[in-house]
Amino acid sequence: VSWDPRDPIAAKRDGRTVAADEIERLVADFTSGALGEGPMAAFLMAAVLQGMDSEETAAMTRAFVASGATVALGDVGRPVVDKHSTGGVADAVSLVFVPLVASLGLACVKISGRGLGHTGGTVDKLEAIPGFGVGRTIDEMRAQAAEIGCVIASQTSELVPADGMVYALRNATATVASIPLIAASVMSKKLAIGSDLIVLDVKAGSGTFMTDETAARALAEACLEIARAHGRRATAAVTDMSQPLGTTIGNALEVAEAIAVLKGGRPGRLRDLSVWLAARATALLCGSALEGAARRAASALEDGSALDAFRRLVVAQGGEGRVVDDPVGVLPAAPVRLPIVASASGCIVAIDAAAIGAAATVLGAGRHRKGAPIDPAVGIVLQAKVGDLVEEGEVIGEVHARSTDTAEQARAAVLAALRTDAEPVVPPQLVAASLGEAPA
Amino acid sequence: VSWDPRDPIAAKRDGRTVAADEIERLVADFTSGALGEGPMAAFLMAAVLQGMDSEETAAMTRAFVASGATVALGDVGRPVVDKHSTGGVADAVSLVFVPLVASLGLACVKISGRGLGHTGGTVDKLEAIPGFGVGRTIDEMRAQAAEIGCVIASQTSELVPADGMVYALRNATATVASIPLIAASVMSKKLAIGSDLIVLDVKAGSGTFMTDETAARALAEACLEIARAHGRRATAAVTDMSQPLGTTIGNALEVAEAIAVLKGGRPGRLRDLSVWLAARATALLCGSALEGAARRAASALEDGSALDAFRRLVVAQGGEGRVVDDPVGVLPAAPVRLPIVASASGCIVAIDAAAIGAAATVLGAGRHRKGAPIDPAVGIVLQAKVGDLVEEGEVIGEVHARSTDTAEQARAAVLAALRTDAEPVVPPQLVAASLGEAPA
Repeated sequence: VSWDPRDPIAAKRDGRTVAADEIERLVADFTSGALGEGPMAAFLMAAVLQGMDSEETAAMTRAFVASGATVALGDVGRPVVDKHSTGGVADAVSLVFVPLVASLGLACVKISGRGLGHTGGTVDKLEAIPGFGVGRTIDEMRAQAAEIGCVIASQTSELVPADGMVYALRNATATVASIPLIAASVMSKKLAIGSDLIVLDVKAGSGTFMTDETAARALAEACLEIARAHGRRATAAVTDMSQPLGTTIGNALEVAEAIAVLKGGRPGRLRDLSVWLAARATALLCGSALEGAARRAASALEDGSALDAFRRLVVAQGGEGRVVDDPVGVLPAAPVRLPIVASASGCIVAIDAAAIGAAATVLGAGRHRKGAPIDPAVGIVLQAKVGDLVEEGEVIGEVHARSTDTAEQARAAVLAALRTDAEPVVPPQLVAASLGEAPA
Repeated sequence: VSWDPRDPIAAKRDGRTVAADEIERLVADFTSGALGEGPMAAFLMAAVLQGMDSEETAAMTRAFVASGATVALGDVGRPVVDKHSTGGVADAVSLVFVPLVASLGLACVKISGRGLGHTGGTVDKLEAIPGFGVGRTIDEMRAQAAEIGCVIASQTSELVPADGMVYALRNATATVASIPLIAASVMSKKLAIGSDLIVLDVKAGSGTFMTDETAARALAEACLEIARAHGRRATAAVTDMSQPLGTTIGNALEVAEAIAVLKGGRPGRLRDLSVWLAARATALLCGSALEGAARRAASALEDGSALDAFRRLVVAQGGEGRVVDDPVGVLPAAPVRLPIVASASGCIVAIDAAAIGAAATVLGAGRHRKGAPIDPAVGIVLQAKVGDLVEEGEVIGEVHARSTDTAEQARAAVLAALRTDAEPVVPPQLVAASLGEAPA
């Protein structure tokens, strides 16, 4: 009996369950070109509207993984952790987390996509360091992980090509907004890397695509369910993205901020979340208690070992290692700087992360279109956080721009994104929920 | 501001209304190639699942019509009627209706598609007549309509090309089953022909795609709504397709049956429905009462004027006119004939029209694949109707086949499709509902 792709499409359309092998066949045929964009797009829209159950979602994830190569890391000699963030404004956690866990005895091979939106992705940020190369073959990743414990490389076409093809189609067909489809896409990239633990940072708030905490939690659960179906260990946190996480938005600026955190001298939410996630990973993989692991992570920031790991990472990937000693001297700087001054006294009760991200894009820090260039030097510094008390006229940040025009525009946008009130508020919880495997 | 096709797709996905100009743009861009199959398929699936309101449906219809040429028939000198059937088993109504209304002083330019399924479409049936040509340019159609009052031609790529392209995509993406999409497709082909009245025969029952009478009525209403939105007169009937309409299923066989009806000598449902529809069209276009129009239509069958119109049609399109005098001598005949004998005594309580249609396809009377050849000679004769009393051993029909094997197969299938019971039943109503414009 010949297979008819309209059968699974009609089943999904009508809200019936689609067999795992039918979903795998749809993805495989779409990837090979045997199935056109039309049928695949129809299936995706039906999946958006009718949902997918955990078996269907696991099958789609499996099909994505099966479309490409996988990276076996069993021989790197350390427990391997992988980490994924669903993305947010001023989210430089990976730049801190990866060297930090390497300094704590774990290995981490982090594959990152290039970003769309307010700033580039992790690899775009690292490219702000002169010489830093993000293209790595699978063999190079394994060798570097064995040698220095960490790699941050860009997504290669060898890994999960089906995910990239399906994502491009989803992006063109308004079928991005679907928890099962997002979960399958996220997890396929994690499953293709042979880690011992997957750490998921699922953001919730205006600065990410999951503005709603309930939806973010559902996405985390869907990802964990896929990990379970594939026999993989995973843990997840739902974290606050109602305001920018760190204090900088911009590629070189975020590298500099990460270096400051790695030097131990920069308290705040970026440091707190990096330590929280690194401690969790270490505790789970080394069987230690969470409290001790958190102390060890903090020490690695204080004693320079995390910074050393970052330096080794930069040098191993061809970058200028001196960046850790003299970020200002090595990283590109924008020609125009404008201070951001509080326009009212009171408590900052809200910072619209999406609006701040949009202001950074206006400066050139992000891209709207795949493949478009980004300006590594520009961006926004914003020290103020929700809950902070500010005085009118107080400098609370700085715009780094290519021109006075864009600087003025971005400054106005940042100020418009802040809400001040006489009544103080309690800052939102950094970690709203913790799901999946939990350490003692 | 540049247009983003994802906006209307997302709106339809989320159940919001899509503006008419956005739907028109989607169709126009898809037809020109500016929009890919993926986005169009995603929109279609969203439309299947979220529905389309009457304005959206009218906009899609308008876009289909605007994609091609239209046929102006204002100068043919008679009121022009157009007729469409949603298709069924043993539905040769067009072969009777078109010459019948021509003999009653109307003009009818009927464009028919080639069929998929149990038999060919109307043009496939007419091609069973040696020499009959179904390809006609728009100018030829107008000239022939002015001269003899009727034309039956095949769909040309000049008319509503967007509908054909969208239908092909729907067929590949399991997005056929949608009342608004079906209505837009049906009505675009009617609106492209400049008629004064559109007569819709919407079938309900196992022998057509609308098995449910409520759905058939909804489709009829949707079509009438499109006509209203375009300022066109229309009337519709929901008619029975729970059993075959006529007594033959097959291309040459149906031509022969239509000729018998046109000669006035063949009572039954095919004649009744043809007269019902022709009377309605005549009454509405000539402002006469329905009863008188029905009498005139019956007379046209009795007095040979409808048969003369059919002969003129055949000759005008290159066919062998002698077919009306000697159908058996002119039409192709199948080499194998097997009688169908009732296997039980009692009342026929059900005839599965879909199964009878499938049996005809096995014989070669229909096609499963666009462009596949059909065998004009083969088919099934089945005199028995629901409500008839039969005796075991009584001959109730005949299979016309290319081989004994397929004949036996078809005969078994026909017998399996009949249900006989001791308890008699009342035959289903031929016209279940009449909607739209009604004559006095």
